Amino acid sequence: MSIAIYPGSFDPPTNGHMDIIRRASEIFDGLYVACMINLRKTSMFTVDERVEMLKRMSADCRNVSVVSSETLLADFAGKLGADVIVKGLRAMSDFEMEFQMALLNRKMNPKLDTLFLTTGESFQYLSSSLVKEIGSLGGDIRDFVPECVYDDIVRKLGVRR
Amino acid sequence: MSIAIYPGSFDPPTNGHMDIIRRASEIFDGLYVACMINLRKTSMFTVDERVEMLKRMSADCRNVSVVSSETLLADFAGKLGADVIVKGLRAMSDFEMEFQMALLNRKMNPKLDTLFLTTGESFQYLSSSLVKEIGSLGGDIRDFVPECVYDDIVRKLGVRR
Amino acid sequence: MSIAIYPGSFDPPTNGHMDIIRRASEIFDGLYVACMINLRKTSMFTVDERVEMLKRMSADCRNVSVVSSETLLADFAGKLGADVIVKGLRAMSDFEMEFQMALLNRKMNPKLDTLFLTTGESFQYLSSSLVKEIGSLGGDIRDFVPECVYDDIVRKLGVRR
Amino acid sequence: MSIAIYPGSFDPPTNGHMDIIRRASEIFDGLYVACMINLRKTSMFTVDERVEMLKRMSADCRNVSVVSSETLLADFAGKLGADVIVKGLRAMSDFEMEFQMALLNRKMNPKLDTLFLTTGESFQYLSSSLVKEIGSLGGDIRDFVPECVYDDIVRKLGVRR
Amino acid sequence: MSIAIYPGSFDPPTNGHMDIIRRASEIFDGLYVACMINLRKTSMFTVDERVEMLKRMSADCRNVSVVSSETLLADFAGKLGADVIVKGLRAMSDFEMEFQMALLNRKMNPKLDTLFLTTGESFQYLSSSLVKEIGSLGGDIRDFVPECVYDDIVRKLGVRR
Amino acid sequence: MSIAIYPGSFDPPTNGHMDIIRRASEIFDGLYVACMINLRKTSMFTVDERVEMLKRMSADCRNVSVVSSETLLADFAGKLGADVIVKGLRAMSDFEMEFQMALLNRKMNPKLDTLFLTTGESFQYLSSSLVKEIGSLGGDIRDFVPECVYDDIVRKLGVRR
Repeated sequence: MSIAIYPGSFDPPTNGHMDIIRRASEIFDGLYVACMINLRKTSMFTVDERVEMLKRMSADCRNVSVVSSETLLADFAGKLGADVIVKGLRAMSDFEMEFQMALLNRKMNPKLDTLFLTTGESFQYLSSSLVKEIGSLGGDIRDFVPECVYDDIVRKLGVRR
Repeated sequence: MSIAIYPGSFDPPTNGHMDIIRRASEIFDGLYVACMINLRKTSMFTVDERVEMLKRMSADCRNVSVVSSETLLADFAGKLGADVIVKGLRAMSDFEMEFQMALLNRKMNPKLDTLFLTTGESFQYLSSSLVKEIGSLGGDIRDFVPECVYDDIVRKLGVRR
Repeated sequence: MSIAIYPGSFDPPTNGHMDIIRRASEIFDGLYVACMINLRKTSMFTVDERVEMLKRMSADCRNVSVVSSETLLADFAGKLGADVIVKGLRAMSDFEMEFQMALLNRKMNPKLDTLFLTTGESFQYLSSSLVKEIGSLGGDIRDFVPECVYDDIVRKLGVRR
Repeated sequence: MSIAIYPGSFDPPTNGHMDIIRRASEIFDGLYVACMINLRKTSMFTVDERVEMLKRMSADCRNVSVVSSETLLADFAGKLGADVIVKGLRAMSDFEMEFQMALLNRKMNPKLDTLFLTTGESFQYLSSSLVKEIGSLGGDIRDFVPECVYDDIVRKLGVRR
Repeated sequence: MSIAIYPGSFDPPTNGHMDIIRRASEIFDGLYVACMINLRKTSMFTVDERVEMLKRMSADCRNVSVVSSETLLADFAGKLGADVIVKGLRAMSDFEMEFQMALLNRKMNPKLDTLFLTTGESFQYLSSSLVKEIGSLGGDIRDFVPECVYDDIVRKLGVRR
Repeated sequence: MSIAIYPGSFDPPTNGHMDIIRRASEIFDGLYVACMINLRKTSMFTVDERVEMLKRMSADCRNVSVVSSETLLADFAGKLGADVIVKGLRAMSDFEMEFQMALLNRKMNPKLDTLFLTTGESFQYLSSSLVKEIGSLGGDIRDFVPECVYDDIVRKLGVRR
């Protein structure tokens, strides 16, 4: 029986995140979706907003809990009793940094392994930054984010314009 | 008959940009060199300065128009009637981000294809950032930027020092 | 006005090739699909079979001619009067070799530029080798090759089994 | 509850393979180590030899079965009732091909997901080919393969010299 | 006889840097460890602090001098009489930028060649940024930095919390 | 004082190899150019032919000896008393394999470090395979190989046609 943790900043969550949550929840016996707070980066959405959107998105997935943390991932995963970290990997731009983090997290907590899922074909170009970029230029983001959080994201982007 | 758009921030334009403009203007029936304005990034040169330098640089190239925009590239290209986006691709550091943008732009505007030209051998290490970095440390940038804009760039860098 | 050449071994042609042919035929004023013969590599399909399949596949595309050659691409393109080489680029595994070939072809024939199109999302994992591999293990290749050449390919793979 | 399959040619198995088997057997409820037979590639060790070495290596790991197959991985995994494919990923040279195979296998069998584990630091440079290369040149391979199969491998390499 | 320069920001120095200093000092007849000052980036440690730590770390290495500079690397190396630049290269994330810089530095100073050493296996995931990130989240950095500078780094990170 | 070894198959040597030999001979106190014999690969030129061409090419370089070996590089370097392996690194296609070999060689012989030089801009697309490919298709290879070995290579390629 394995418990997984899926960390991210989810600022905001996208269909790519939704895809990983759904697939990981079917593979593992329990899945923590962990909204990691980086105090040195400014975010568009508050932690509470992000956690709330993630909860709405994953309401239909079995065994999923949404949590948040501003501590070290390796420590936090240990406290939750997670056995593995799950990350989505896009063909582009993610691999090297993610690999480095995986080796590092194993160094910090040797019992904590990282497993990568390949991001689905149609989400290869998706990222939270692109959603924000496109949305703030008035582009249509309906295909990029889960329907149940679309309004929240549009409203927030509108406030910023 | 194909009309191309070559987007960039051109802050400032380099010999690498000049190389792409010259080659693309020979391949396509019309070429828009589009100075894309990113309101969230600070630039060293104003849009007007960049547009003016690009016009001077491309004065000898047939069918080239220099334009600027602060809207979404996929929308802007559509309004201009452009069929393809042209980008230069260096062996290093460009590929993954550019690939992601190409897939995304096709998603945003399915009629808009992206074509990549390989940056010439002698421009592989060139970028606007490096020109600014080297110039501001007092290095010689004469080989890196078109002669007709060299004085403008040196003057601006001097102001900054 | 630009004439393009799209070289490949097409052993056999796939939906990924079809995608590039269709898109390139809309961008350029003329497109040569060139089946390049490598005498040192054994192929599954004869040149005639490959040319015939490519002709059937591209019957609906305007301005497309299918040709074959066993000479140097840079020379052959020159003889046909082609201005540009067109290649499809997948996010994975193609970039470095293709970049090297593009620089080399420009060195061999400075008037011959190479333009890359990004392979569509749903063709990222496709290659002629994989089609042969999967088909010969009895897997279903119906989604991977154009319908009009499916029977030819299955028949050939069957002969091999 | 998840059942995983770890496919490879294991010609011969190395410490890098051992590392993945051990870690995967702890994450999943069952693990099939699958020696995939490629009839078009010549191998140094017979399938029986490879299966036997893998069995000896994994004797201490819980829930591990060693199997072999010459059919399509996506089909074979389905027949075994495996939910996920597990692969080791080295920082170098594996990523693009593995990513392509992961997308392809999901296409062939949508219920079959691929999970990547990062190969341990000290196994980054290890591969079956290198073990054969070094061993056949008289180099010491003691640090590269599990102790319990070392003699088998040395004997086989000796025969070849 | 060759004199090398090893440039970096060393903010703070790590075991990965120590590894390169030790190995390079054995290869070259003289080695300048050069703390390069980037006035546009904020650093955690002052130049004096970094130089002092580097001196302590390299006290046992023969032929090593620690220097600092805010001028262009190519110029600075020339003034010191260095023949080569030495850089450490990790499997991940360094290659493309470093390659670009090497070509550029040769362009700026044709007599100045760049040599890359591969970072040791156990330092592949290490970087000054990660040390700061982990330390500031309360993680244990004892394995990541030389013992003789550990206290300095912890004290500085503590001040920041 | 450092002695370097520059290994390769040099089948045939190119201007890219010449560039590395010249630069390495200026950096190190002695340089062995080592023609490594791989009994399992067929080569176009015999070892004697390759050694002879390399000797002619490097006649003007100080401190260069041309040698050949069919043993393990790590062992051979040790016997010659070499301290470092020198390799040329192209922006494309070399990095991952070379990195793997460098880690491996250090594992095999901890006193033997590998240093990478960046291949010059104008040699980025060059390789022995391409020279053979182009030459055998009747293309002009005059710009790709040292003048003093050009006739040998053309003659050999002619024999093959």
